[in-house]
Amino acid sequence: MKLLIINGPNLNMLGRRESAHYGTLTLTDINTKLIERADGRAELEFFQSNHEGAITDRIQLSSGFDGIIINAGAYTHTSIAIRDALLAVKVPFVEVHLSNVYAREDFRHKSYLSDIARGVIAGFGWMSYALALEFFMSEPK
Amino acid sequence: MKLLIINGPNLNMLGRRESAHYGTLTLTDINTKLIERADGRAELEFFQSNHEGAITDRIQLSSGFDGIIINAGAYTHTSIAIRDALLAVKVPFVEVHLSNVYAREDFRHKSYLSDIARGVIAGFGWMSYALALEFFMSEPK
Amino acid sequence: MKLLIINGPNLNMLGRRESAHYGTLTLTDINTKLIERADGRAELEFFQSNHEGAITDRIQLSSGFDGIIINAGAYTHTSIAIRDALLAVKVPFVEVHLSNVYAREDFRHKSYLSDIARGVIAGFGWMSYALALEFFMSEPK
Amino acid sequence: MKLLIINGPNLNMLGRRESAHYGTLTLTDINTKLIERADGRAELEFFQSNHEGAITDRIQLSSGFDGIIINAGAYTHTSIAIRDALLAVKVPFVEVHLSNVYAREDFRHKSYLSDIARGVIAGFGWMSYALALEFFMSEPK
Amino acid sequence: MKLLIINGPNLNMLGRRESAHYGTLTLTDINTKLIERADGRAELEFFQSNHEGAITDRIQLSSGFDGIIINAGAYTHTSIAIRDALLAVKVPFVEVHLSNVYAREDFRHKSYLSDIARGVIAGFGWMSYALALEFFMSEPK
Amino acid sequence: MKLLIINGPNLNMLGRRESAHYGTLTLTDINTKLIERADGRAELEFFQSNHEGAITDRIQLSSGFDGIIINAGAYTHTSIAIRDALLAVKVPFVEVHLSNVYAREDFRHKSYLSDIARGVIAGFGWMSYALALEFFMSEPK
Amino acid sequence: MKLLIINGPNLNMLGRRESAHYGTLTLTDINTKLIERADGRAELEFFQSNHEGAITDRIQLSSGFDGIIINAGAYTHTSIAIRDALLAVKVPFVEVHLSNVYAREDFRHKSYLSDIARGVIAGFGWMSYALALEFFMSEPK
Amino acid sequence: MKLLIINGPNLNMLGRRESAHYGTLTLTDINTKLIERADGRAELEFFQSNHEGAITDRIQLSSGFDGIIINAGAYTHTSIAIRDALLAVKVPFVEVHLSNVYAREDFRHKSYLSDIARGVIAGFGWMSYALALEFFMSEPK
Amino acid sequence: MKLLIINGPNLNMLGRRESAHYGTLTLTDINTKLIERADGRAELEFFQSNHEGAITDRIQLSSGFDGIIINAGAYTHTSIAIRDALLAVKVPFVEVHLSNVYAREDFRHKSYLSDIARGVIAGFGWMSYALALEFFMSEPK
Amino acid sequence: MKLLIINGPNLNMLGRRESAHYGTLTLTDINTKLIERADGRAELEFFQSNHEGAITDRIQLSSGFDGIIINAGAYTHTSIAIRDALLAVKVPFVEVHLSNVYAREDFRHKSYLSDIARGVIAGFGWMSYALALEFFMSEPK
Amino acid sequence: MKLLIINGPNLNMLGRRESAHYGTLTLTDINTKLIERADGRAELEFFQSNHEGAITDRIQLSSGFDGIIINAGAYTHTSIAIRDALLAVKVPFVEVHLSNVYAREDFRHKSYLSDIARGVIAGFGWMSYALALEFFMSEPK
Amino acid sequence: MKLLIINGPNLNMLGRRESAHYGTLTLTDINTKLIERADGRAELEFFQSNHEGAITDRIQLSSGFDGIIINAGAYTHTSIAIRDALLAVKVPFVEVHLSNVYAREDFRHKSYLSDIARGVIAGFGWMSYALALEFFMSEPK
Repeated sequence: MKLLIINGPNLNMLGRRESAHYGTLTLTDINTKLIERADGRAELEFFQSNHEGAITDRIQLSSGFDGIIINAGAYTHTSIAIRDALLAVKVPFVEVHLSNVYAREDFRHKSYLSDIARGVIAGFGWMSYALALEFFMSEPK
Repeated sequence: MKLLIINGPNLNMLGRRESAHYGTLTLTDINTKLIERADGRAELEFFQSNHEGAITDRIQLSSGFDGIIINAGAYTHTSIAIRDALLAVKVPFVEVHLSNVYAREDFRHKSYLSDIARGVIAGFGWMSYALALEFFMSEPK
Repeated sequence: MKLLIINGPNLNMLGRRESAHYGTLTLTDINTKLIERADGRAELEFFQSNHEGAITDRIQLSSGFDGIIINAGAYTHTSIAIRDALLAVKVPFVEVHLSNVYAREDFRHKSYLSDIARGVIAGFGWMSYALALEFFMSEPK
Repeated sequence: MKLLIINGPNLNMLGRRESAHYGTLTLTDINTKLIERADGRAELEFFQSNHEGAITDRIQLSSGFDGIIINAGAYTHTSIAIRDALLAVKVPFVEVHLSNVYAREDFRHKSYLSDIARGVIAGFGWMSYALALEFFMSEPK
Repeated sequence: MKLLIINGPNLNMLGRRESAHYGTLTLTDINTKLIERADGRAELEFFQSNHEGAITDRIQLSSGFDGIIINAGAYTHTSIAIRDALLAVKVPFVEVHLSNVYAREDFRHKSYLSDIARGVIAGFGWMSYALALEFFMSEPK
Repeated sequence: MKLLIINGPNLNMLGRRESAHYGTLTLTDINTKLIERADGRAELEFFQSNHEGAITDRIQLSSGFDGIIINAGAYTHTSIAIRDALLAVKVPFVEVHLSNVYAREDFRHKSYLSDIARGVIAGFGWMSYALALEFFMSEPK
Repeated sequence: MKLLIINGPNLNMLGRRESAHYGTLTLTDINTKLIERADGRAELEFFQSNHEGAITDRIQLSSGFDGIIINAGAYTHTSIAIRDALLAVKVPFVEVHLSNVYAREDFRHKSYLSDIARGVIAGFGWMSYALALEFFMSEPK
Repeated sequence: MKLLIINGPNLNMLGRRESAHYGTLTLTDINTKLIERADGRAELEFFQSNHEGAITDRIQLSSGFDGIIINAGAYTHTSIAIRDALLAVKVPFVEVHLSNVYAREDFRHKSYLSDIARGVIAGFGWMSYALALEFFMSEPK
Repeated sequence: MKLLIINGPNLNMLGRRESAHYGTLTLTDINTKLIERADGRAELEFFQSNHEGAITDRIQLSSGFDGIIINAGAYTHTSIAIRDALLAVKVPFVEVHLSNVYAREDFRHKSYLSDIARGVIAGFGWMSYALALEFFMSEPK
Repeated sequence: MKLLIINGPNLNMLGRRESAHYGTLTLTDINTKLIERADGRAELEFFQSNHEGAITDRIQLSSGFDGIIINAGAYTHTSIAIRDALLAVKVPFVEVHLSNVYAREDFRHKSYLSDIARGVIAGFGWMSYALALEFFMSEPK
Repeated sequence: MKLLIINGPNLNMLGRRESAHYGTLTLTDINTKLIERADGRAELEFFQSNHEGAITDRIQLSSGFDGIIINAGAYTHTSIAIRDALLAVKVPFVEVHLSNVYAREDFRHKSYLSDIARGVIAGFGWMSYALALEFFMSEPK
Repeated sequence: MKLLIINGPNLNMLGRRESAHYGTLTLTDINTKLIERADGRAELEFFQSNHEGAITDRIQLSSGFDGIIINAGAYTHTSIAIRDALLAVKVPFVEVHLSNVYAREDFRHKSYLSDIARGVIAGFGWMSYALALEFFMSEPK
């Protein structure tokens, strides 16, 4: 099983950024924990970018993957391009968020991804990724 | 670790109800699977009711629990009473949904629970409960 | 032919309640008239409750009926739980109202039932029920 | 008892038009069935037009009638002129629809007639007219 | 003078619940204070329930009372059934709130009771009830 | 000076229609009064129709007139066709209403004519026309 | 016949202010013209203020007048105090505007006076006042 | 205890103004009643103005008072200046209304004061003031 | 190939009407140009009316055509009757506009035709028709 | 160069009012600092009032000034009268705010002045005035 | 004649992406067809990018072109940057869409380009580009 | 003192782009003027990009700066990614605009930056930057 884990803008700042919302782990810390959790049962590839276009490019090349775990960050709320890329490749994906987006500014309540996602997981910090990983590994292929 | 799993209206109809949205497992099937997953690491108590007041009553009595997993069904979108009960007892809770509520009618996009939840998991069928369980069991107490 | 006739909150007050909107017949008067109209061609069962949960419970047990005539009263405008119960059992139902709800407060213009109903009849006093009954008895089974 | 039955735009296309919404009967078929149902107890006059102005004209001349059954079709949702004509003549009228308008496009949920109608009947195919007829014939004059 | 004092969902949790909003008195404490204040000039009957239907039932039976003081809690903002019950019995009622609902979440600004109430009192903690009591006792019958 | 006075749908019913809103004069009565008021200083031509298209046709032929006084009735609120015809011929026009439209239903507050009118006069009964006439006769050509 | 003519904020600037909207006459010019038009048939009293409170004060003292002609200027769109004063004294009033307010910014489309006015006249420059005067002088007392 | 009682625009018209909404007592009558009720336990100072600015001025000078009872009348719904003055002086205040503002025009449902008030009392006629007075006198200082 | 070209209200005024929006060609000029462009490859029939009902009538009779090119003018934004006629006959149609409707008043941005059209072409003056013609002639039948 | 510096309601309370939003300087302190900054290059005149009408009066008399710096305080969000006065005199003006109004209540995001201002400066405390002064002194006359 | 043809995000996926909306031709297929259609009469340059910034960059360099045909894909609905670039270079452009965007999700109904485009063509598959090309080649330069 | 000056999309086109809104200076001209103004008291670094992602990248690297002056151009109104980057680095920033954005299209009135900015300066052309610079240089560090 091959999974692509995409992180959007400013998630490379984790650990150095608003810890009340996002916790103290860096993105590398999270990735390491996910590899441990995958424990060989799934091959994980990581991608982070602050560029909407680069994320779109990357998704277009994901057709060989069994699933995508995406935390599109700010682009969750503004990017139809990323939505369309996910629709185009048709790889099942899970939308994740570190923070509970529903408890924050109104503009973070709108997602261009949720209605086409396999599912949504929000608010559990790094565990949001881990639960998405758990989901993909639990599903019969 | 003691967890309370609350299911709201019509979830007692699972398996006999709109399988496109809700799958073919009964609520008893799901509960059995969750007990297997808990595997002794967590004690699970189950409650289902079609009555907003009864769910409110039950939540008020939950102060001894370490967490609540709640699929409030239709009341997710209409009940401030359940919200207030959860605020009153202050037990951390996870909001779960079998279906991807964001892909359905507009009135299912509104939740009175999300912004005060520990987190939200939606769209994974019975696995939504399992992931919430996983979350509670993973957290250091 | 078996029909279930459900009346929601405050309809047990008919005859004693705002006669300008609801007329002077009691609910028992109406039921008696409907039995006369059915005239043996349809078996009628009556249910009234002020409890959203109790109405939901009752609908869940209605799978043996050929149709439901429901005046959900105030819950018409606020209950997704009743909507979901009707969706779950898939018994065809007609939404009725004694008064012309479209001529009253804005919040009575919204119905959670209309779009999934077989049809809607409003404004004819007790005759709203009688016309729904007529419809079910006219339809070829 | 004299009743005027008014059909608005495109209802002359019945039987040749979107059968999923409107059924396979022609308007003539429906009128014939209504005459049978009236069975001499009510005299029915029929009028159909695609012209908002013509329908307005016709309503203005309806003062001798005991009631109007009107399916204003598309004009239900856009015509204040027809509303005003009905207000001007003060003949009691029933608004009917073949299809369940509440289950269709949003712009079909708005009616300029409902709040001033004697009542509303929607979703029963040709039976919507028949039930309106039944109502007028049941009422004591 | 007989007065009915109705408390809605979660008000049985007073003293144990969000003290910033609701203070530290229990509902029993408040009731005791009100009896002291009534000082024999008014007979008080108390009712609390978390069930919308039960509150509706209770109001229907209130026709012998001179007034109702109601803190419908969460149902203030969501229950048309309770509104309709109050309309049906026509006992004058005062809507009270412990907290200043206008300073809280948007959904608490909407009340289905205010426009049909004799008056509204909000924000004075247990004194909201006391002032309503004062009002009823001051009014010439 | 030649003036065209256009009356829209249902204004031919004046005197027989909702006198609280529209008064007891017939349209012929009003026209007679206007001719008296014009007193030879202006030549008046009258047109009434219930048909949006016919009103549009008539406006298109009005290029020889010095002004139009239009009470478009219900079409005031729904007709862009009439607006466009008035824009096309560029004859200055005054929008008039018998009743105070701002004191009636919300949908009568919207006018497709007001922003392109020379001016608006509403609420003075037949005097609304007379004042518009006065305006045109007072203006230096 | 005694009439009070009230002008609101910035109307004392007429003739020196945005001539495209308001023309080149000063307020004194307009008042002089109105006195000429009244021609002894009506006694006119003039009041102008930039102060909402002063206009409110003046209206409260207007009970001896047969009518008020008011151009409340900017306060048309923002002052409930002036509305309430007019409601309190119950002197019939006509709302006038020099410019066509419907052709200007959105916030000038809202009036707190229109629905309680005897009528509204807008867009005719100083003639708006003259037409209102004509109306009051034409009405049988 | 020193209390300042502020009345906004048109409240000086009480007794002469729309008695259905406001009752038949004059403002002086009310003030007299309040002094009787205070019965020496509180010193009352009264202020009324139709001027938003004058009310703002007065509030700025209220720092020596223990509380303010304010019926801002029309300015309740439109004045941020009065809100800001109350925020600036930080004297606790109670918002009162004679009439049930929630049962009136939509624009009276909005208050710029409620969310920063100590509490709100509406609909009890002159008793609204009396209950506010009662509140201040009951509170431990 | 037979094509029906329908023009709605005021398009008969072309060349004499607001040239900034609509250009200087008359409708006859445009029709002549289209016939030249069709060059015998398509048979064109032209229809223009200011009457919504007449356009509806004409569309109902279009079942023998291979396509419709419709510039419904003002009715684009207000007519559900024309929409329904196009749905009823199921002839593929292209919506065209001379002017760029998206650059004009807000009410011209709404179209009741666009979502059921084969396509939309707007802003190219008479070339909008020519491009629609080109489309129909390019398509394999 | 002559500049008029206008301060609206409650700005006379500076230094004694909500220091989190407005800082600890008094208005006199600010004015002194501005005179120092102007350093003889500009002549400054200061005006403060809590009265919308008084501010309107003052602006009307400003035609001799080269510029206005206005902090209209609460009236920024509610006063069309002040807007109209500024439009009438046509003196270029800069809108300033001490606090960052965009970070505060929604009703402070709306300004009736911004779109007609020469520019807007908000959030810099007393420096907002200083920067506006800097702008006027930097501009070539 | 030199034309620039810009394709936005995910249009490089054509032929491999949701064929119901976008057809089975690849972008290269379309470009080839357009070159054939241009037939030497126009020189075509093609640009595709998933990056909003790159499209903005490219447009800035387009001043030598006679026209732009742009299918901005998802950025149509979200990019003001691309709008501003088109405004900056002032090359006339046609907005095209393969699918009928008006028949899809609400967020695709909003375009930041339409009101500044020379015209809009949507819904004709690859022919949308061809018609735009036809338009540019038909126009006199 | 080190300041970073960021310019967003299309600001590299200054001097060649819509001079009515943006003036005739190029971005280089502005930067030169700012360096002159800084006059050695502040070290300025300039960055311009049309790419949202590149601006986000640059902001992330700005932690050594004492302040940011940002004119995010079109991204002001659409980019949550840039907002989040500014939140992440916590360098105080001033939002500037050359034009008065409040006088332009509605979509330019919304800013994702204003509420988290130190302050906002708009409408002064290149002086907007100069005033922001002045602010940073005036502040005690």
